[in-house]
Amino acid sequence: MRVLSGVQPSGTLHIGNFFGAIRQFVALQSEHECYYFLADMHALTTVQDAGRMRSLVRELAAGYLALGLDPARSVLYRQSDLPEIPELTWYLSTVTSMGLLQRCHSFKDKVAQGVVPNHGLFAYPVLMAADILIVRSDLVPVGKDQKQHLEVTRDIAASFHAVYGREIFTLPEPLIQDDVAVVPGIDGLKMSKSYGNTIDIFGPEKPIRKRIMSLVTDSTPVEDPKPREGSALYQLLKIFAPVEERPWVEGAFDNGGVGYGEMKKKLFEYFLATFGAARSRYDELMADPAEVDRILLAGAARARETVAPLMDDVRRAVGIR
Amino acid sequence: MRVLSGVQPSGTLHIGNFFGAIRQFVALQSEHECYYFLADMHALTTVQDAGRMRSLVRELAAGYLALGLDPARSVLYRQSDLPEIPELTWYLSTVTSMGLLQRCHSFKDKVAQGVVPNHGLFAYPVLMAADILIVRSDLVPVGKDQKQHLEVTRDIAASFHAVYGREIFTLPEPLIQDDVAVVPGIDGLKMSKSYGNTIDIFGPEKPIRKRIMSLVTDSTPVEDPKPREGSALYQLLKIFAPVEERPWVEGAFDNGGVGYGEMKKKLFEYFLATFGAARSRYDELMADPAEVDRILLAGAARARETVAPLMDDVRRAVGIR
Repeated sequence: MRVLSGVQPSGTLHIGNFFGAIRQFVALQSEHECYYFLADMHALTTVQDAGRMRSLVRELAAGYLALGLDPARSVLYRQSDLPEIPELTWYLSTVTSMGLLQRCHSFKDKVAQGVVPNHGLFAYPVLMAADILIVRSDLVPVGKDQKQHLEVTRDIAASFHAVYGREIFTLPEPLIQDDVAVVPGIDGLKMSKSYGNTIDIFGPEKPIRKRIMSLVTDSTPVEDPKPREGSALYQLLKIFAPVEERPWVEGAFDNGGVGYGEMKKKLFEYFLATFGAARSRYDELMADPAEVDRILLAGAARARETVAPLMDDVRRAVGIR
Repeated sequence: MRVLSGVQPSGTLHIGNFFGAIRQFVALQSEHECYYFLADMHALTTVQDAGRMRSLVRELAAGYLALGLDPARSVLYRQSDLPEIPELTWYLSTVTSMGLLQRCHSFKDKVAQGVVPNHGLFAYPVLMAADILIVRSDLVPVGKDQKQHLEVTRDIAASFHAVYGREIFTLPEPLIQDDVAVVPGIDGLKMSKSYGNTIDIFGPEKPIRKRIMSLVTDSTPVEDPKPREGSALYQLLKIFAPVEERPWVEGAFDNGGVGYGEMKKKLFEYFLATFGAARSRYDELMADPAEVDRILLAGAARARETVAPLMDDVRRAVGIR
């Protein structure tokens, strides 16, 4: 099956990103033909600063590669390297009813949050439909709250089929993953950039260590057993501890005698053990932007080969070229 | 100065199209650097039939070439041959406020007419802004009722400049032509495809002759002088009669003795004298679609050379590539 997923360059990668999505993307590579793209054209609806855009894209590409997206197995590309995507977006726009877009949560939510809407935010679901349909993806990994996006894509494809009387697109199915870990942030809430409670994967050790040491814990004395319920530290230790260390973690909480500070130091060790190789690879890639660019351009070239026959079909269907 | 104009493939060319626009386009070629494009991507908002789209585009290209658009002097291209246009459309979308588009007459009018709006109709002004801005046109010929379109384009360009802090686009000025003849249709109303009162320029002589012979006239007897006021026939004769024949036309109306039928035959003669060469050229071009295609692709190649540096500037400004 062909899988597609796009990710917006919107900030430094944190461990919530990894356990919530990237780990699954990496795993999918061994079962499926995967297309992963950096959604820089989408990001323009919110990131409107060239320098920041460039560094976000570069960090995201380096991060994904470092964490195991394998350009030999998957097709990794920048959205903006495929001019066919905005072209298809226009064709789809002409068969997309205004009502469909007006009903989209993503736009309504932004307006409700007081964001002054630009047309890019409104037209976003059409661009996304083009992203998905253009590679004829069978499956799109989505969170439960993103199912509407995929329904809109299916609606737009069906509308094109109805208008032109030809079945050109593959209607994608959602791939809802069960094994997605909910990663707590340092304050115990779900880790999310918007809560400011993240732990970065990359970058210098010192601030990450400091961040981990600042995990919110209760005031149970060192010698007492520690409550697991509602403990972000416990949840993170469970995620990061290697199998052979798990008894130690359980013991530390059950038996007492181990302070939260010591546990956090352990967590930092486990973090480094988990991400050490990726962190080195990331630093290498960040030091060699030409290599990252080469990988992305090679990915774009492969993606353009994939989309060419579909675009021919679409143009023929609408009577253009 | 650089002039840009686009025309939608929306039906057979009639004499109102020629005297209302095409004649000016031809004349502008001797003073300006002209870019003329066939707006097939715009047409998709209303023409959703591949066969019809293809023949409309082919007829329009052959018609424009036959009527004097000179690919050696002007750049003539199909909109869809420039993938940079939908790409730029997306960048512009992200700096275009929803309010601006909601206020556009063209969309409001269509909705008021009961047209079920598709997103293409709504996003139309953004695509048009891309058409205009991408070639850095200084002047855009517009009718008085189309000035809003150009204001929207200027607003979108200014918004891009404000967001990215760089002046990249040329803000186009309207070129309002004074010498545009209002051509009456066979019923005396303004000639317009939507009124069904047109006289085609191309195609077999017989139906055109029949059409001209069916011009609505009053019942003044042959021997009497004929009223000029409100006479579509008189207006058309004035437009078509060569200089040396004008006294005859005036005499025929002033002195009486010439029937409307005879005048209409004269009008048909003048029509053939005016468009005869263009009609032959049109038939040649319609018989040689490969030649039309070659001309359009050569025009697109020239247009793409023009737009390349601008697109580099835009991509650099937004931080993409």
